[in-house]
Amino acid sequence: MGDYRALWSKLNMDLEKHDKLCAVLPEMFGETYLTQENRPDGMNYFNFVVSEVHGLRIEELDTHRKNGGKVLGTFCVFVPDEVILAAKAIGVGLCGGSQFWIEDGETIMPRNICPLIKAFVGAKVGGTCPYVQSCDMLVGETTCDGKKKAWEILNELVPVHVMDLPQMKKAKDYKMWMEEIKLFIAKVEELTGNKITLQGLKDAIELCNRKRNALKRLYEFRKYTPSPISGLDALLISQIAFYDDPERFTQNVESLCDELEERVKTLKPNGKKRIMITGTPMAIPNWKLHSIIEGLNAEVVVEETCTGTRYFENEVSSEGDTIEDIIKNLADRYLNINCACFTPNDGRIEDIIRYSSEYKIDGVINCNLSFCHSYGIEYARVEKSLKEKNIPVILIETDYSTEDSGQIKTRVEAFLEMISNK
Amino acid sequence: MGDYRALWSKLNMDLEKHDKLCAVLPEMFGETYLTQENRPDGMNYFNFVVSEVHGLRIEELDTHRKNGGKVLGTFCVFVPDEVILAAKAIGVGLCGGSQFWIEDGETIMPRNICPLIKAFVGAKVGGTCPYVQSCDMLVGETTCDGKKKAWEILNELVPVHVMDLPQMKKAKDYKMWMEEIKLFIAKVEELTGNKITLQGLKDAIELCNRKRNALKRLYEFRKYTPSPISGLDALLISQIAFYDDPERFTQNVESLCDELEERVKTLKPNGKKRIMITGTPMAIPNWKLHSIIEGLNAEVVVEETCTGTRYFENEVSSEGDTIEDIIKNLADRYLNINCACFTPNDGRIEDIIRYSSEYKIDGVINCNLSFCHSYGIEYARVEKSLKEKNIPVILIETDYSTEDSGQIKTRVEAFLEMISNK
Repeated sequence: MGDYRALWSKLNMDLEKHDKLCAVLPEMFGETYLTQENRPDGMNYFNFVVSEVHGLRIEELDTHRKNGGKVLGTFCVFVPDEVILAAKAIGVGLCGGSQFWIEDGETIMPRNICPLIKAFVGAKVGGTCPYVQSCDMLVGETTCDGKKKAWEILNELVPVHVMDLPQMKKAKDYKMWMEEIKLFIAKVEELTGNKITLQGLKDAIELCNRKRNALKRLYEFRKYTPSPISGLDALLISQIAFYDDPERFTQNVESLCDELEERVKTLKPNGKKRIMITGTPMAIPNWKLHSIIEGLNAEVVVEETCTGTRYFENEVSSEGDTIEDIIKNLADRYLNINCACFTPNDGRIEDIIRYSSEYKIDGVINCNLSFCHSYGIEYARVEKSLKEKNIPVILIETDYSTEDSGQIKTRVEAFLEMISNK
Repeated sequence: MGDYRALWSKLNMDLEKHDKLCAVLPEMFGETYLTQENRPDGMNYFNFVVSEVHGLRIEELDTHRKNGGKVLGTFCVFVPDEVILAAKAIGVGLCGGSQFWIEDGETIMPRNICPLIKAFVGAKVGGTCPYVQSCDMLVGETTCDGKKKAWEILNELVPVHVMDLPQMKKAKDYKMWMEEIKLFIAKVEELTGNKITLQGLKDAIELCNRKRNALKRLYEFRKYTPSPISGLDALLISQIAFYDDPERFTQNVESLCDELEERVKTLKPNGKKRIMITGTPMAIPNWKLHSIIEGLNAEVVVEETCTGTRYFENEVSSEGDTIEDIIKNLADRYLNINCACFTPNDGRIEDIIRYSSEYKIDGVINCNLSFCHSYGIEYARVEKSLKEKNIPVILIETDYSTEDSGQIKTRVEAFLEMISNK
C-alpha cells in the first residue's frame, strides 16, 4: 500500500491508532487467504482491493469529493444504492467486521450489543476508519433496536438520515416504504445538489442489476461439486461489493466467472462436506467462521446472509414511465429481502430450504452475531423447519474475538462427523 | 387463597409446577411488603388482590368467559385498553416478572434476551400462569426485536394478533397507528362478536381516563417530602393496574388517595434520599430494585417506566362525533408515550428532567433489564442530559435472579453516599 498518511490526516483520523489496525490486517489476510491452494487467478483483483482497502479506494472517494461529488455511508442491504448512484454520489457500506473497533464502541455503547454495531460506532468514535471519515452523510435504517438507537449516538458526530423500514410486509408497508424512498431521494438531492431523473434511476438500476447478476452467476458455480471457488473467496467478493466501484467490481466478478466456467469442466471430487451459512452478516474483515469451517474437511457453498444471497437476489425492474413507477419497483425489490427484522419472515425459511436442495447442502450452520435478538429468536423456526426436512443444523453464536475459535472448531468438527455418520 | 385447583386444571395448567410458584410467592410478598412499617390502611385491598392473584381474579375471568365474554392478554402500554373494553372484553397484562418462568422460557428462546420476554414465553410454554391460560387471544406489538420475534413462537401455541407500532413519530406514523387501531378494532369485534360503537368507545375512554387520573392523583402525593406512601407500595399498585377490574381498581386507588390526603397534613422529615427510577418496566412480582433501595436510607418517589408514569400520563380525548375521530384521539394519546422504541425519543429525556424537579429528586437510578437494547443504548443520552443538569445518575442492569442483589445493594449504597457528600 502506498503512503496515504496525508490523506488520512486530512480526514481527521487518529493516525497512531489507525497504524495499529494497518499493522494487523495484512498478516491476517495473508494467513487466511493467501495460504489457500489453487485459487482462481481472478482473485488477484480482490486481493489487490484488500491490500489497498484504506488507500486507493479512499483516494478515489477523495477525488470524487474534490470534484464536488458526495459520499454516503450505508449499513444495510435495504438502502437503495440506485438512489445514491442516480444522484452521482458514491455509496460505501460501513458495517464493521473487526474486533479492533469494539473497544472504542464500548466506550459509548452497552457491551451486550452485537459486535457489528459496536464496531461501526467504535470506528467513528475512534476516528480509525477512512471510509466513515470520507462520508458526507450516513444513511441508517430501523432494522433492529441496536442500530435504530445507535443512529441517535452517531448523529451527534456526523449527519445521519434514517430510513424507517417497515416491520411487516402488508400492502400498507410497501406504500410506507415507497414514501421512505421518496424522502431519501429528496434528502440525497438536497445533499448532492443533483436532481434525480427517471433516466438516472433507470441507468442506476441497470448497473445495480448487472452487479447482482454477476454475483448470481458467481453463486451458480458454487452449486457444482466441488465448488470451483472457496467459501472464503466468495465471502470476500461479497464484502468488497459493498464499497468497491460497482462498474469495475462487476467486470472483475464477470472475468472471474469466465475463469470458473473453464474450471468446472475439470472438477474432481474432494470429499468435502457442503455447508450453508445462514444468519447474520459477516462484514469485512470477519472471516472467522468460514476460516474455521474450510480449515476442516468442508466447504462453504452458499451464504443465506446479507453478505450473501440477500444482497443480490431479485432484480429491480426498470419498467415504467415515471419516477413513481420506478420507486414502486425499488420498494417491491427491496422489501422482498427476507430479513429477520420482519414479522413474520416465512420467506427466509423457504429460501433456506430451497438453497439446501439447489446447493446440495450436507449441513447448515446458523451463525448468529452475539446478542442479535431477531436472528437469535428466529433460529427456533429455522431449526424446526430444517429438522423436519432431515437437514442437519447447528447454531453458532459468536462475535469478532478469537477467544472462542477453538471451541467453535471443536463444535464444527463434531457437526461434520455427525453428518458423515448420518 | 381458596382452592382453585379444579379451575386451574380446566385451564390446562401444569398443576404440580404451578404449586411450586404458589409456594414461593406469599413468603416473598410477606417479606417484601408486610414488613413495611406504617403502611396506609388503603393498601389492604392491594394486599388482598395479591393474595388472590391466581384465584379470585381468575375466577372472575372464568365467569366472564362462561357468560360468552372474551379475555385478551396484552404486554404493553401501547395496546389501547379502550378498544378491548368497548367490545365488552377483559384485557389483562401478561408481562412476567418472576424468575420462576425463565427456565421454561429458555427452552425455546435464547438466554441473552430480556427476562420479561423469557418469562412470559416461559409462562405459556410451561402452562404455569392462569392469566395466560385464560386468554382467548394475545395482543402483541412490535416495540422491540425480542417481543416482535417472540410472537412468532407464541403464535404456534395460542392465537396472537400483532399491532405494528411505528418506530418514529412523524405525521405518517400517526396515520399508520390509526390504521393499526382500526385493524385491532376489526379483530376484537370478530373475536368477541360485539360491535364497537362510538358510545362504547366514549364510555371506555371515560373509565380509562378515571383510572389514569386516580394513578396521577396517587403520584401527586409522592411529590411531598417525605412521600406518604412507599415506592414499593406505589409500584405494587401500578402492577395491579394491569390486570385488576378497572372500575374496582380505580375506586380503591381513590380511597387510598383520600387517606393520603389526610396523611400529608402531618408528615415529618425522614431524612431519606428521594430517588427516581427510570428505564424498563417492572412486571409483578419484580420488586427487586425497589426493595433494595428502600431497605437503605432512600425512598423511590417516581418511576418513569411503563409500570409508572408512562402508563397513566396524558388522557384520551373523548371529543368527536365519529369513530374515526375517536381513533384519532386514541392514536394521539398512545403514540405520545415516550418509549425508547422510538427514534428519536427526546420526549423521554424531557420527562426525566421535568420529573427530577417536580419530585425533588436527589438521584436517578436507570434500571435496565438485561439485554434490553433500546433502553440500554438510550442510557448514554439519559446520563449525558442528567449530568448537564448536575443530577446524579447510575445505571443498574439486572434480571430477575437474586444473585446480584448484594452487588446492587453495594452500588446503591455507594450512590446514596455520593449524593450525601455532594
